[in-house]
Amino acid sequence: MEMKGKVLVAQGGGPTAVINQSFVGVVLEAKKYPQITKIYGALGGIEGIINEEFVDLTTETAHNLEKVAATPSSGLLSCRVKPDRNYCLQCFEVMKAHNVRYFFYIGGNDSSDTVRIINEHAQDADYDLIAIHIPKTIDNDLVLNDHCPGFGSAARFVASAFMGANLDNRALKGVYIGVVMGRHAGFLTAASSLAQVFPDDGPHLIYLPERPFKKEQFLKDVQTVYEKYGRCMIAVSEGIADEEGTPIVTKFVENVERDMHGNVQLSGNGILGELLANVIRDNLDIKRVRADTFGYLQRSFVGCVSDVDQNEAREVGERAVHFAIDGIKDGSVCIERVGDYAVNYVLRDLEEIAGKTKVMPDEFINEEGNGVTTEFYKYVRPLVGSGFEMPGRVRANKVEKIWHNKIKPNKNK
Amino acid sequence: MEMKGKVLVAQGGGPTAVINQSFVGVVLEAKKYPQITKIYGALGGIEGIINEEFVDLTTETAHNLEKVAATPSSGLLSCRVKPDRNYCLQCFEVMKAHNVRYFFYIGGNDSSDTVRIINEHAQDADYDLIAIHIPKTIDNDLVLNDHCPGFGSAARFVASAFMGANLDNRALKGVYIGVVMGRHAGFLTAASSLAQVFPDDGPHLIYLPERPFKKEQFLKDVQTVYEKYGRCMIAVSEGIADEEGTPIVTKFVENVERDMHGNVQLSGNGILGELLANVIRDNLDIKRVRADTFGYLQRSFVGCVSDVDQNEAREVGERAVHFAIDGIKDGSVCIERVGDYAVNYVLRDLEEIAGKTKVMPDEFINEEGNGVTTEFYKYVRPLVGSGFEMPGRVRANKVEKIWHNKIKPNKNK
Repeated sequence: MEMKGKVLVAQGGGPTAVINQSFVGVVLEAKKYPQITKIYGALGGIEGIINEEFVDLTTETAHNLEKVAATPSSGLLSCRVKPDRNYCLQCFEVMKAHNVRYFFYIGGNDSSDTVRIINEHAQDADYDLIAIHIPKTIDNDLVLNDHCPGFGSAARFVASAFMGANLDNRALKGVYIGVVMGRHAGFLTAASSLAQVFPDDGPHLIYLPERPFKKEQFLKDVQTVYEKYGRCMIAVSEGIADEEGTPIVTKFVENVERDMHGNVQLSGNGILGELLANVIRDNLDIKRVRADTFGYLQRSFVGCVSDVDQNEAREVGERAVHFAIDGIKDGSVCIERVGDYAVNYVLRDLEEIAGKTKVMPDEFINEEGNGVTTEFYKYVRPLVGSGFEMPGRVRANKVEKIWHNKIKPNKNK
Repeated sequence: MEMKGKVLVAQGGGPTAVINQSFVGVVLEAKKYPQITKIYGALGGIEGIINEEFVDLTTETAHNLEKVAATPSSGLLSCRVKPDRNYCLQCFEVMKAHNVRYFFYIGGNDSSDTVRIINEHAQDADYDLIAIHIPKTIDNDLVLNDHCPGFGSAARFVASAFMGANLDNRALKGVYIGVVMGRHAGFLTAASSLAQVFPDDGPHLIYLPERPFKKEQFLKDVQTVYEKYGRCMIAVSEGIADEEGTPIVTKFVENVERDMHGNVQLSGNGILGELLANVIRDNLDIKRVRADTFGYLQRSFVGCVSDVDQNEAREVGERAVHFAIDGIKDGSVCIERVGDYAVNYVLRDLEEIAGKTKVMPDEFINEEGNGVTTEFYKYVRPLVGSGFEMPGRVRANKVEKIWHNKIKPNKNK
């Protein structure tokens, strides 16, 4: 059955460097099918639907769409609203008024749940709607996906940032802490390991939310590395928690901000980094301790994008349209790895994806819980894309000391 | 007079993305002159000289040197030591033992002062030494230089970061504060203005160390922008100070760390950003306030380099060798702007450079003291180099509201 009607596309949750590739993939692909009468974009995610803030993307030039596709962050704007039954019912009323029959929502965990709720209510309201969730998240935490669009570019940023910070730390010594986004899943923090080129390059220690963070072990780890290399580079997830699962950052901060989903606000402040720096300053004999919190830079930095990520983000958008045109009622487009390196796109039930979180599997984390394995390296390397430059290093021979060995006056004289 | 002897090259102070271009420029150029017997590199700046930690760069391949040149941060490592008379005298003894006759020190304010002190003592010790200071600093605060190598790439990073953060903030709204390096000079913070493409793009407000920071004016500025655009992007220098010159960050923090030069430690923590975010949260009715401190990422991020900066950093190194071979006793290589855009390299007296700080001239700062002028744009644009991509934006027409205007049930019924 060729269902005639409009396409509505929206973007939800935190932006990524390639989320516009998916949205443009939907638009350019949908333009090919005569049963699609118009292609609307909702401005501001689900909030744009309830407020009926639509733009007619059918009027966009392909040239401008390609320029938007190459631009980071959500070109259709975003929101963090978690819709309830009433919210969703009202969205249908708006969709119905415009004869929207194909709904594509690009987002992460929360957004896939939104698609699920909407389609449940679509069925209840007896409204013919095809609703497809298109994955994106820099956290890489959607289940059933080998990896998620947006992760590869964020991983490239984190690896590049650590590579530069490592070169900086090598020149001036001390301890460096880089705090990386990731509430429950440590994939992005683990990607810092790509910065290791020479054996003494950092990050030397990587702390993930998947393993309980123990202060005493942390201090022991730092001391050991510092004694070995005269410096120490640490990558840490913002979401690290103690053995009871209490986020480390909340143990020290009184008024913790929470978002509309009830999640503790971990980003957009430098608290965890300062906290860990002070733990080192207070307990170890190390003077120079510096902490950077990568914050919002890591998810939409202009000029640090993985081409592999770009291509896949485009293709999940295109494939979503294919699944919809094929008449499938709803689902979530998932990326499967089928080679080294090749991928395939399949549609999974929304119920299987929504509200679930994938974390780093055990084989990606080292035994000590303070680093990653070569299995992880093999997993992550293709995702950051091509042209990922490796630093050079001076290899010249040391010169024999003349003054210190032969000329230096004997202090005892 | 062709003075026969060795070259010694070293890198001091904070690394930049292109400081290795200058060092490699010295090495490759020095190789061409027969009076130069060997080219040594000191490992760890001036500290490497006193410790006699030399490597023989004459044995390096040109290929590896080019790879090092393209790598950010100080390939010969660095230090933050400020040498006194005794320290310098001992350095001469070491240099003498190796027949070092040409000394090139790549660094900023403090390093140019080091070169000046060393050569003063060289004269006192009646030792024939040619000592040339090669400029580098992301702060862009060396006097007599139109701009400094390292600044263009750091400016490109800051502009790219703000461009991405602006797209992010446009999608999710709220207030965003980006804290940029810069103790006394606001050039790097001002470079954030390059992120403005569309009229409503941020940064909307830029606060520099050159103007006193007033809390009440700051709150008024933020309120005004927020009312106009529903969001606000703020760029702020880490070194902003009140009317008495007291850094804002020290007004709130008890134990302030100081480096060996007596400078207050401003980087490597997120305190100022959190502080300003709290000022907004406490005084304005704005919920979502986020602060990022760019920290160490901005000076040696891998993969965000200005080609103009690279080329100039190479050339100051090459020109330094030319001045030395010409027999000039000492000096500092300076960049003059001689066209739009073209530069020339001249040698200035060390006394004119050392210990002085250039700040943003008045014509680069707007009247309100919360932004920059088009004069600044004309100054900074060529420095960030080519291939600086501009973001695209959806231009599609708004769709007429049907449901809200015609269908929506009247609540009064």
